[in-house]
Amino acid sequence: MNYSETDQMGFVYHANYLVWMDMARTEHLRERGATYKALEQQGTFLTVTDVRIRYRLAARYDDMIRVRCWVRDLASRRVIFGYAIERAATDELLATGETSLIALNHGHTLSRIPEHVRELLEPTADPVRL
Amino acid sequence: MNYSETDQMGFVYHANYLVWMDMARTEHLRERGATYKALEQQGTFLTVTDVRIRYRLAARYDDMIRVRCWVRDLASRRVIFGYAIERAATDELLATGETSLIALNHGHTLSRIPEHVRELLEPTADPVRL
Amino acid sequence: MNYSETDQMGFVYHANYLVWMDMARTEHLRERGATYKALEQQGTFLTVTDVRIRYRLAARYDDMIRVRCWVRDLASRRVIFGYAIERAATDELLATGETSLIALNHGHTLSRIPEHVRELLEPTADPVRL
Amino acid sequence: MNYSETDQMGFVYHANYLVWMDMARTEHLRERGATYKALEQQGTFLTVTDVRIRYRLAARYDDMIRVRCWVRDLASRRVIFGYAIERAATDELLATGETSLIALNHGHTLSRIPEHVRELLEPTADPVRL
Repeated sequence: MNYSETDQMGFVYHANYLVWMDMARTEHLRERGATYKALEQQGTFLTVTDVRIRYRLAARYDDMIRVRCWVRDLASRRVIFGYAIERAATDELLATGETSLIALNHGHTLSRIPEHVRELLEPTADPVRL
Repeated sequence: MNYSETDQMGFVYHANYLVWMDMARTEHLRERGATYKALEQQGTFLTVTDVRIRYRLAARYDDMIRVRCWVRDLASRRVIFGYAIERAATDELLATGETSLIALNHGHTLSRIPEHVRELLEPTADPVRL
Repeated sequence: MNYSETDQMGFVYHANYLVWMDMARTEHLRERGATYKALEQQGTFLTVTDVRIRYRLAARYDDMIRVRCWVRDLASRRVIFGYAIERAATDELLATGETSLIALNHGHTLSRIPEHVRELLEPTADPVRL
Repeated sequence: MNYSETDQMGFVYHANYLVWMDMARTEHLRERGATYKALEQQGTFLTVTDVRIRYRLAARYDDMIRVRCWVRDLASRRVIFGYAIERAATDELLATGETSLIALNHGHTLSRIPEHVRELLEPTADPVRL
């Protein structure tokens, strides 16, 4: 991670983990053949309603970070992602997290996650204990 | 809130709430006569170990935001803060949250929250349902 | 300023000054009776085309910061703001800056700054040497 | 780039370019065999004193961004980097920039850039007109 993400304790400021989790679920979609950009252009917005993060070990400046992301649960209008944030060099588990997202349409009212996107989001058992 | 905090949905990007919650607990300390800066200079660091946020309504560009902050629970080495994030103009509840923090010393090992700081942190019942 | 804005040198990360400058020019407009939000709703976007910042002294955690902002130059499609960033407690000059902004319409093509906004933006001599 | 970097115009918020430029010069050092982390551990801090950015075209959500970085000028206590920020898919030039950095020691006083680092920082003619 980058100097802009450090704080004066020399650690990564804790709000940045939410940004990494966002990047990881965007990649999760992309690897399965859906881009979030296209999803928005088709009129579906996924918006975060709940966040939980447990910080275990601190990330430091210049650490290479790996974020594992998976689908924990999927319903017609909601998807829950799980995350494990790891120090790449040592495989240490730095943090775990979970975010719930709901689907909104252009008018910002609750809507269904499009079928072709739901098919790409296979829920799995947690690979890491949250 | 500020243009830098918006995202392309026209809402406030969700990671910014963690920054506001940090600012609110710093103010909570200051109002009670302790500055976090002095606490660090005396060798005690409060570091976030757990975060929960529930987003209810979206904050938008130029909304004036009010963050209420209180102590939910206090132990010798840990303090839990609760938060209610509100749109100032309408008193609407936008989000609720909770953060747990532990005390670390300069060597980054677990330590006690100094007595004079603990005395300032009176736990209260939640004024808002989290 | 806030803990999220520090870096591991214990200073304010330098990109944050651009955010403060943005907030200051929004306030400059508001004090003169125009909100940037309304300007966007009326179809005019002011977008930054040029930035210069000179950093002189470092801002530190918990410093109260004051940003002075003024109009350096005004044309039909462009406005240049100047900034002086000061430590409030000591009046020390921490940084000076300048940003040029052009007006765009909804189609993102160059347009005129609305007359009623131009009237509010009185250029002045620099109160601080940039 | 990432959703956290967008603003409500759907563009990348302009302060993020400074973060990218920071990342690019860290990579520039790394490719030449010096890490900024090691430099700090050896007691030399490079701190930004001057920034200039010219924004030409807007970066948008999900654009892949490439930042080219080079040394424009090198003196015993100061180094000037140039930057070209490009949309990777189209090679379009989005922005150009320049940052001056000075070397500080642990006591935050001006010091010389270590000889072994200076040898790695070969100034070149600007590959892109700034």
